[in-house]
Amino acid sequence: MIKFRSLLSDKVHNLSPAQLIVSFYFVAVLIAVILLSLPIARYDTGDWSFIDALFTAVSAVSVTGLTVVDTSTTFTVTGVILIAFVMHFGGVGVMAVSTFIWLLFGRKIGLRERRLMMLDQNQSNLSGIVKLVKQILVLILAIEMIGTLVLGSYFLIYYDTWQEAFYHGFFAAVSATTNGGFDITGQSLAPFANDYFVQFIIMILITSGAIGFPVLIEIKEFFAHKNGKFRFSLFTKITTITFAFLITIGTLLIIVLEIDSYFKGMSWHETLFYALFQSVTTRSGGLSTMDVSEFTLPTLLVMCTLMFIGASPSSVGGGIRTTTFALNILFLFHFARGHKHIKLFGREIHEEDIIKSLVVLLLAITICCSSIIILSMTEGFSLIQIVFEVCSAFGTTGLSMGITPDLTTVGKLVIMSLMFIGRVGLLTFLFMMESKRKPPKYHYPVERVIIG
Amino acid sequence: MIKFRSLLSDKVHNLSPAQLIVSFYFVAVLIAVILLSLPIARYDTGDWSFIDALFTAVSAVSVTGLTVVDTSTTFTVTGVILIAFVMHFGGVGVMAVSTFIWLLFGRKIGLRERRLMMLDQNQSNLSGIVKLVKQILVLILAIEMIGTLVLGSYFLIYYDTWQEAFYHGFFAAVSATTNGGFDITGQSLAPFANDYFVQFIIMILITSGAIGFPVLIEIKEFFAHKNGKFRFSLFTKITTITFAFLITIGTLLIIVLEIDSYFKGMSWHETLFYALFQSVTTRSGGLSTMDVSEFTLPTLLVMCTLMFIGASPSSVGGGIRTTTFALNILFLFHFARGHKHIKLFGREIHEEDIIKSLVVLLLAITICCSSIIILSMTEGFSLIQIVFEVCSAFGTTGLSMGITPDLTTVGKLVIMSLMFIGRVGLLTFLFMMESKRKPPKYHYPVERVIIG
Ligand SMILES: [K+]
Ligand SMILES: [K+]
Repeated sequence: MIKFRSLLSDKVHNLSPAQLIVSFYFVAVLIAVILLSLPIARYDTGDWSFIDALFTAVSAVSVTGLTVVDTSTTFTVTGVILIAFVMHFGGVGVMAVSTFIWLLFGRKIGLRERRLMMLDQNQSNLSGIVKLVKQILVLILAIEMIGTLVLGSYFLIYYDTWQEAFYHGFFAAVSATTNGGFDITGQSLAPFANDYFVQFIIMILITSGAIGFPVLIEIKEFFAHKNGKFRFSLFTKITTITFAFLITIGTLLIIVLEIDSYFKGMSWHETLFYALFQSVTTRSGGLSTMDVSEFTLPTLLVMCTLMFIGASPSSVGGGIRTTTFALNILFLFHFARGHKHIKLFGREIHEEDIIKSLVVLLLAITICCSSIIILSMTEGFSLIQIVFEVCSAFGTTGLSMGITPDLTTVGKLVIMSLMFIGRVGLLTFLFMMESKRKPPKYHYPVERVIIG
Repeated sequence: MIKFRSLLSDKVHNLSPAQLIVSFYFVAVLIAVILLSLPIARYDTGDWSFIDALFTAVSAVSVTGLTVVDTSTTFTVTGVILIAFVMHFGGVGVMAVSTFIWLLFGRKIGLRERRLMMLDQNQSNLSGIVKLVKQILVLILAIEMIGTLVLGSYFLIYYDTWQEAFYHGFFAAVSATTNGGFDITGQSLAPFANDYFVQFIIMILITSGAIGFPVLIEIKEFFAHKNGKFRFSLFTKITTITFAFLITIGTLLIIVLEIDSYFKGMSWHETLFYALFQSVTTRSGGLSTMDVSEFTLPTLLVMCTLMFIGASPSSVGGGIRTTTFALNILFLFHFARGHKHIKLFGREIHEEDIIKSLVVLLLAITICCSSIIILSMTEGFSLIQIVFEVCSAFGTTGLSMGITPDLTTVGKLVIMSLMFIGRVGLLTFLFMMESKRKPPKYHYPVERVIIG
C-alpha cells in the first residue's frame, strides 16, 4: 500500500503541474467541441462553423460566457444540458485539478512550516488530499442543487410549467455557481432586473464559485472545528478581504459614476441592487441584469479594471486574481516606505510569491495590451468596445458591449486565447515555457543601472 | 581645502536626492509662471488665465510641449525667447541636476566596483563631477548653437530676412534639443514635411537630448581615449540599444499599419521619412510633421506605448524610461526560464535595480490608468483621444490629437500632474514619500500564498 502510494506520488511528481493543467484543459475543449457539434445539441440553423464551435467550447470550458451565437435559439434542451456539463467540467474541474496540484506541490513547504489544518488532521498525504478534493466537489454540487431547488421553486411564478421553471432554475444555478455566464433567456438576467430575490441567490452562487476552492475548504474546516482554535490561512484572509473590497469599491464607484446617468430617476434600492449586481458579476460571473453598453465611459473603464483583476486563484474565475492584485499593492506601499518584507496578519509574505505576483501582472498587461492593439487592427470597433471585450475575456467574465458575434476570425482567435490564458492562469502558462536545463551557476560582476 | 570639500559633501548628503530634484523643479515652474506672465511676453489677447499660465509653465519646464494656447499668436518675440530659456532651465537643468545627484549618490558603489572611466581619470570626487557636468552643459549648448547655425542658414530659403530665418532656426534647434516640442510656426514642423534635411537635423537634435546625459559623457570620454581600452558602461549599452530598438520597431510598425491608409499613394522615401520622424518624435521630441489624429487606431495605440516608455533616464525626456522597459522585459524572460540573475554584456544586473524597474512600471501604469478614468469622467472626448493625451503628457512627448486647449480645469490639472511626474521621474516621486523611520527589524513566520 505504501509502495503503491509512493509510486503514484512519484508519477504525479514527474509531470510538471503546468503540463497537467494545460493538458486537462485541452482535453476539456476537445470534448466540448465534439459534444456541442452533435446534431442533437443544436437546432438546424445551418450557420454552425468550426470556429463558432471552437469559440463556444472555449467559452464554456473557460466558463467565460462570451458567445458568438445566441444560446437560447441555437441549442436544443439536450445542447443546453451539455453546455451545463461542459461548464462544470471546465469550471469546477479545472478548479479542482489546479487546487489538487497546488496542494500537492506548492503548499507543501508551507505545510511543513506551520500548523495548517491539514497537518492537524493528518491529511498531508496524497490520499487525504484526494479525499478532500472529492468532498469539495460534493460541496459544489450540493450548492448547485440547493440553488436549483430554490430558483426552480421560485421560478414557478415566472413560468407556466414546473418543468420549464426547474429547467431555467437548474441552468441559472449552474451558470452562476460555475461562473459560466451563459444564459438561456436570450437576454441574460434582464428579465429579473427588478427581482431582488433571484439576484440575491445568484450573487451568493457566483461568489461561492469565485471565492476560491481553498477558501471553501477552510470554511468547511472552520465549521468542523467547533472548539475554536481554528486559524484561517493567510491566503484565505488576503483573498477574502480583497474580494470583499473589490465588490464594495465597485458598487460605490458604479453608483457614484451613474447616479446622474443610468440611475437617474431610480429609487435608492434599485440603484443599489443594480450596482451591487454589476459589481459582483464583474468578479467573474458574467450574468447581467442590464445592457452594459448603456453605462458611461468611466463606469465601463472601472468595470474593465475589475474584470482584469478577476476572481480568487483556484476558483472558477480568471484574471490576474485577487492575491496578485493585493500583493502588488502591498509591494508598492512597502517599497515606498523602504520596508524589505511585507508583514500581514502576523505573517510574512514569501519573497517568491511577491516576485510571482509581479510577473503575473506584468505579463497580463503585456498580453492584454498586445491583444487590444491586434484587435484595433482587425476589428472596426471603438477602443472602449475592444478594451472591454479583452478585459472580459481575460477575466473570463463574459460581459460584452455586444461585439462578440461580429468579431472577425482573427478577433475570435484572439479572444479565445485570452479566455484560455485567463482560465489556465498566467503562472501556469509561464511555467509551460520553462526549460528543463538548470540555469548556469557562474556569476558576472554586478553593475548598477539608472532606472526611471 | 579637504575640510571644505567634505563639509560640502556632507551638506549635499544630508538633503535627500528626491527633495533636491523636486525643489529644483518647483522653483523652475514658479520662475516660468512669473516670466510668461510678464506683459512684454504676450500680445494683449485678453484671455490669459492663471491656469493657462501654470499649464504653459509646467509644459515648458517639463519640456512636454502640450499647449492650451497657440504659442505663435499668444507670445511676443520676447515671450518666445523666454520660453526657449525656460525649456533649457527645465530640460537641460533638471537633466544636469539629476545626473549630478545620480553621480553623487547612486553610481558610487558601481564606481568602486569596476573600472569606470571616471575612476580612471581620478574624477570620482565632488569637484571632478561638477566639472564634468559643466562640460556637458557646454556640450549641449554647443549642439544647440550648431543646430541654430545650420537650421538658420538653411531657413534663408524659407524666410525673407536673415533675422526671421535665424529666429526660427534658433527656436527649432532649442525646441528639438531640449525636446521641448513647442513650435512658433503654429503647425509644428508640418511646413517642413517634405524637407528631409530639416527633419534629419531635427532628429539628430532630438536624439542628442533624449539619449541621456551619461551617454553623452561616455561618448565624450570615448573620443578622449584615443588608445582604445575604453569600456562603455552597462547603462549606456542598455539605454542606447533600447533607444535604437524602439525607434526601429516604431518606424516599421507605423509603416506597416499605415501603408494602406495614411501613406497610400506616397513614395517610399516619403513614407520612410514620415514614419521615421514620427517614431523619433514619440521618444520625447513632440515636434511633428503631420496631424497625428489622421493616423488609424492601431498606429495611435503603438505611439501611445512608445510615448509611455519614453526616453533615457537622466535625459530631457520622460516616461518610464528605456532602462525600465528593458529591465522589465529581461526580468520576464529570465523568470520564465527559471534564471535567478540577469546577465548581460558580461555583467550582472543588481537585484535592486530590477525591483526599482518593476516599481516604476507598476506605479506608472497605476497613475496613467487612474488619470484615464478621471479624464473619462471630466472630459467629453473619446477613449483614444484621452489615452493618447495621457501617454503624451506622462512621456513628456507633447503630441496631441488636438484636445489640449479644450480640456476642463480638472483635465488641465491632471495633465499638468502627469507632465510633472513624467519629467521628475517616478522613482524620485516615490522616494519623496519615503519615511525617515527605520523599518522594524522583527520577523514573522513566512507563509505562502497562491498567485494568479
Ligand atoms: K463568466
Ligand atoms: K516634448
